[in-house]
Amino acid sequence: MPDNRRFLLQRRPDGEPVAEDFELVTQPTPDLDEGQFLIRNHYASLDPAMRGWMDAGGNYMPPVPLGSAMRASTIGVVEDSRAAGFEPGQWVMGLNALEDYSVGVTGGFTQPIDPAMVPHVTNYLSIFGAVGMTAYFGFLDVCAPKPGETVLVTGAAGAVGSLVGQLAKIHDCRAVGIAGGAEKCARLTGKYGFDAAIDYKAFARDDEAGLSGAIADACPGGVDVIFENVGGTILDAGLMNLNLYGRVGLCGLISEYNTAPRGARNLWQLIVKRASIRGLLVSDYVERFGEGAAQMGQWAAAGQLAIDEHIDVGLEHAFDSFMRLFAGTNDGKMILQIAR
Amino acid sequence: MPDNRRFLLQRRPDGEPVAEDFELVTQPTPDLDEGQFLIRNHYASLDPAMRGWMDAGGNYMPPVPLGSAMRASTIGVVEDSRAAGFEPGQWVMGLNALEDYSVGVTGGFTQPIDPAMVPHVTNYLSIFGAVGMTAYFGFLDVCAPKPGETVLVTGAAGAVGSLVGQLAKIHDCRAVGIAGGAEKCARLTGKYGFDAAIDYKAFARDDEAGLSGAIADACPGGVDVIFENVGGTILDAGLMNLNLYGRVGLCGLISEYNTAPRGARNLWQLIVKRASIRGLLVSDYVERFGEGAAQMGQWAAAGQLAIDEHIDVGLEHAFDSFMRLFAGTNDGKMILQIAR
Repeated sequence: MPDNRRFLLQRRPDGEPVAEDFELVTQPTPDLDEGQFLIRNHYASLDPAMRGWMDAGGNYMPPVPLGSAMRASTIGVVEDSRAAGFEPGQWVMGLNALEDYSVGVTGGFTQPIDPAMVPHVTNYLSIFGAVGMTAYFGFLDVCAPKPGETVLVTGAAGAVGSLVGQLAKIHDCRAVGIAGGAEKCARLTGKYGFDAAIDYKAFARDDEAGLSGAIADACPGGVDVIFENVGGTILDAGLMNLNLYGRVGLCGLISEYNTAPRGARNLWQLIVKRASIRGLLVSDYVERFGEGAAQMGQWAAAGQLAIDEHIDVGLEHAFDSFMRLFAGTNDGKMILQIAR
Repeated sequence: MPDNRRFLLQRRPDGEPVAEDFELVTQPTPDLDEGQFLIRNHYASLDPAMRGWMDAGGNYMPPVPLGSAMRASTIGVVEDSRAAGFEPGQWVMGLNALEDYSVGVTGGFTQPIDPAMVPHVTNYLSIFGAVGMTAYFGFLDVCAPKPGETVLVTGAAGAVGSLVGQLAKIHDCRAVGIAGGAEKCARLTGKYGFDAAIDYKAFARDDEAGLSGAIADACPGGVDVIFENVGGTILDAGLMNLNLYGRVGLCGLISEYNTAPRGARNLWQLIVKRASIRGLLVSDYVERFGEGAAQMGQWAAAGQLAIDEHIDVGLEHAFDSFMRLFAGTNDGKMILQIAR
């Protein structure tokens, strides 16, 4: 069997992760027990939530044990199998790790996928994976948008955010996105169809009033729904523009994952506006993924949904690629290609 | 006509209000126009929300204009009238001001009340007023408690909080209260029937971990509902103990009204627990006040609801009495007696 390169978590990051928290090692490919199968990982999804898995407390998943390969969603091909239903050559998707080879078990999180069903197999990590289903259920189910409402999306150039903006337009809402930099903002209005884009980098880091004013300019009728990926000053500026009975779908707080949280200081607006913040997690909707994927597939086929994927190649670049998520230097769903 | 003592807002407070922000003046009692009536204010409700009305931005109500008597809910007696339906001698309740005499208008917020319907007329400012209705609708409607759930109440010795704890017990929930000092905590478990009380003053101001641990000890099954009156470290400690799909009813943030908010730093728990925070305001339920008051009256008559009222006497003490709310030196609903 070939060697197995594995990207190990060797130390829990203190704030922003550094390269020394990880180590790329080469270990023997494991032998299979009965009921197991060997997956050659082709692509891995790199997601902000993985930052939480590196901490001792974990988040909605237990922490990755030190010395283990970093957990990640991957798609790959069954290379060897002692498990019924998983034959060599079968494409699969599952919660595995940043490594050449992972071991799957029957009854686990790994499921067969059919590359012929999608334009490119990586779409299973973007529009038809957790990202797409987060946008679909998080926006439509948790935020319950109504036609004519104004939807503010933060982290709008990101994988989830860009889909939410497009879903808002499909549902006849006004979509306004916040992103970092002129280039991303141009993509929001040019490619994803947002009605307006706000460049948060045009404001000082703590200039809540400036950002709030920009939101007010872009949302003259106020904001009915916030799809929140960022937190901090950006969330606080959004809260100041909420309409009565506004809803905030809380998908992520990426500005706070690597630092002590600044904290949400405008919760009083929830009282004034009788508004709500609700946390959302795609795992609540696993049983409805078929419905979501079918609907997203129809919109994509009709040209109503564009998804960008930013694919870096090589397991040896895992750290740099992961850190793009926090620097905002990825253009679309961040994917690491493991097999060449 | 007699002179009218009025407690004027003369300067917008910078952080914590000081006595110099206000002035007690004596002015002529106003003449009545057609459709107006003169109210002799007997009692005024002093509420934390009034702090927001002092700011230039206001909150859910417009700011009190500088030089005007400070807005407050009062109960009093019609002294003179040029309005149909408001005869001299009639008791009324309405949104008036801290002054001996207010002018009411037909079709305004002032409504007749019947002192014979309640044990004491001040109960219209507590259990049968905004306080009681906030507890009733804010807890039962917004938090939707189910039998067997654990309810955490912050500001639990306060007027609203003490009622919410008792409503939780009536609805077969476990009620845990957070209050400041051993005396208040003894009142929670002794008089209001809370299952457990936590003295936040036993912890350093920013000791979130200590407070969170105390909540965990008092709520071994976790927290399903938080009725939040305080914010800051206390809210953050509560969020750490939320159960899956927990609900936070956000009634107040008294710890943040006089200072730059510390900010809620544990919103990530909303994602992990798929929990929600919803702001609530009693004015949304005005049309259902009859229902709420009738039900609260039945429970009170059955001995299931105790309400404490802290009555200070004298308009000249308005400032000191108002500031009790922030120092926590009131024992029950804070009421200022204006007429002797």
